[in-house]
Amino acid sequence: MDKGYIHVYTGNGKGKTTAALGLAVRGVSAGKKVFFAQFIKGMAYSELKSQDFMPNFKIQQFGKNCFIYNDPTEEDVKLARNGLESCKEILKSGEYDIVVLDELNIAVYYKLFTVEEVIETIKSRASHVEVIITGRYADDKLIEIADLVTDMKEVKHYYMQGIESRRGIDC
Amino acid sequence: MDKGYIHVYTGNGKGKTTAALGLAVRGVSAGKKVFFAQFIKGMAYSELKSQDFMPNFKIQQFGKNCFIYNDPTEEDVKLARNGLESCKEILKSGEYDIVVLDELNIAVYYKLFTVEEVIETIKSRASHVEVIITGRYADDKLIEIADLVTDMKEVKHYYMQGIESRRGIDC
Repeated sequence: MDKGYIHVYTGNGKGKTTAALGLAVRGVSAGKKVFFAQFIKGMAYSELKSQDFMPNFKIQQFGKNCFIYNDPTEEDVKLARNGLESCKEILKSGEYDIVVLDELNIAVYYKLFTVEEVIETIKSRASHVEVIITGRYADDKLIEIADLVTDMKEVKHYYMQGIESRRGIDC
Repeated sequence: MDKGYIHVYTGNGKGKTTAALGLAVRGVSAGKKVFFAQFIKGMAYSELKSQDFMPNFKIQQFGKNCFIYNDPTEEDVKLARNGLESCKEILKSGEYDIVVLDELNIAVYYKLFTVEEVIETIKSRASHVEVIITGRYADDKLIEIADLVTDMKEVKHYYMQGIESRRGIDC
């Protein structure tokens, strides 16, 4: 099998998790198996339902039912660390061709685990596994090891008009 | 029904069409109907197969089986203009909650139709329809009428390592 590469989608604009979801659809459409891990997040996002109809697609959350505001709690740390451990097994096994680590950058930013632990986890993967990392504030060390990095810059966002998250579009 | 907004995903980085695909998955997961028009493109992309398993999702191409290199041909113009006409009907009808106009920016860039024709088309939509526009070189007039704009900047891309498009990841 061909070598799998590392993508990082970062920046403050809309499109990071969304692009990872799009990669998942393209992957399963081509017969690949996709695992989609969501760090930090534990909310009932619409995309969770996509595993009901998308073949060879599994999505799992490793976060609480609310965002981290000030400091992360012990539970935030525990959920994220368990998540990284689960992802390590999945990456090593090579069972999935594409593994998405959604909001991983935020978990590193909040020091739920270190960037070194993340790099070790990614490097221990079966060689054909493509890894997709999303979230603002990508660590320089992750950018360094990545093969593809897109910085998604917000030029305009409708929340500036006072529009809140809408189901089926934003969440 | 709520008002639908206009998104533009532009820039030279990977993630534009991919984000539009992700929005499509999120939309159908929440019970929305999604129409995905691909301008310029006529190649057998993996994502075409996603309509086999994604409910309430239709994808249609309005381009040839190769990219435009030098000047667009008469056929490029005809296909794109027919596409815009079809999209106008679909946008007006309100049958689909989300309408993606993939690579529309490129079609404007190559003057297959004018930005004024595009704006008229979008403005004539049923008011609840969310419109997603992708492609490099977004015209300033489209950015002006958009509610959300993300500029996807390439920081790194694996094609710099000589890696070509891979099925299920890039196409």
